[in-house]
Amino acid sequence: MRSKKGVLVVLSGFSGAGKGTVMKRLLEKYDNYALSISATTRSPRPGEQEGVSYFYKSVEEFEQMIKEKRLLEYAKYVNNYYGTPKEYVISKLEEGKDVILEIELQGAMQIKDMLPDTVLVFVTPPSAEILKNRLIGRNTEDMETINKRLARASEEAEGMERYDYILINDELEECVDDLHGIIQAEHLNMKKNESFVSKIKDEVKVFAN
Amino acid sequence: MRSKKGVLVVLSGFSGAGKGTVMKRLLEKYDNYALSISATTRSPRPGEQEGVSYFYKSVEEFEQMIKEKRLLEYAKYVNNYYGTPKEYVISKLEEGKDVILEIELQGAMQIKDMLPDTVLVFVTPPSAEILKNRLIGRNTEDMETINKRLARASEEAEGMERYDYILINDELEECVDDLHGIIQAEHLNMKKNESFVSKIKDEVKVFAN
Repeated sequence: MRSKKGVLVVLSGFSGAGKGTVMKRLLEKYDNYALSISATTRSPRPGEQEGVSYFYKSVEEFEQMIKEKRLLEYAKYVNNYYGTPKEYVISKLEEGKDVILEIELQGAMQIKDMLPDTVLVFVTPPSAEILKNRLIGRNTEDMETINKRLARASEEAEGMERYDYILINDELEECVDDLHGIIQAEHLNMKKNESFVSKIKDEVKVFAN
Repeated sequence: MRSKKGVLVVLSGFSGAGKGTVMKRLLEKYDNYALSISATTRSPRPGEQEGVSYFYKSVEEFEQMIKEKRLLEYAKYVNNYYGTPKEYVISKLEEGKDVILEIELQGAMQIKDMLPDTVLVFVTPPSAEILKNRLIGRNTEDMETINKRLARASEEAEGMERYDYILINDELEECVDDLHGIIQAEHLNMKKNESFVSKIKDEVKVFAN
């Protein structure tokens, strides 16, 4: 038995850690997960679908959502807004789905502020050496791109301790099972079972009389 | 991959919640667990073994252990001391064993103070009704004993929120798997992986230069 409300999980981590692959495999392998869908002001690309790839918004609509605090987090990249609509996430959690989303440190912190029950997971390869090899890749990129990536990893590492869990992506299936295990355990987190706890406490109090 | 040091788990909960059965089954079903062994000043009973059932101590020895802070927690019941020797627990954790022990709220809080990484798990039946039926038992006990047990449950409920996890013992195997899952997830807790984190952070910092 476990709390019926879903758990919100934020996945961050080094570029090259395989976050996307882990999420994809988690959704294939286990039921009960929903992906968060972002809102954006950028135009749909061929093949993308409203409400599947993104919720497409005008700048005015997006700024209205910011004003009304209808976004769990948002950021601007290259003149376009990207953000996580609160309503969609909350409705999935209420349905009992565990909602998973991939964002960077700053977004993760914004979400944790708004919804303190959010579980923050940082994904990393087993060693810096392996990370470096993955980032350098197959010599198809110039030195500048590679150096940017390496510098980026150094920035990403700064916020690691602010996450709740570290997920080491060595072997994919093991990593996915570990992530699933973390989320299952979080359903048993005392703070996520307040209604059950207060119910049984009230009932048990009667025994003393 | 996970932290190599063991996790210390304290199990508390309602009398009648089946803590003993859960622990026994956990140790049968999964490797890597060690039971904490208590120290006591009471005399060995027939069949009990030093270092297996208990570590038997004289009152002087026990009070010396208290003075030297060599106990993670202790209490006195019916003129006898009972406590958890720190050295035994720490050595098992260093070996990589997950150490599990069953104590009450006050002892649990003493341990958490001394070793903040300790995971506190509160075991409860699925409802107060079921707890009551288990406490009342099979009508072999007088009303006074039953009322004492019911009043005790009410006291035990008071500290519930101070635990990290709630474990609902409905179906035994599921409950044991849930407990094992909590402990596995705790190996991935960020705070329990400080040495890995600081190592990878240092290595990654070099990338930026």
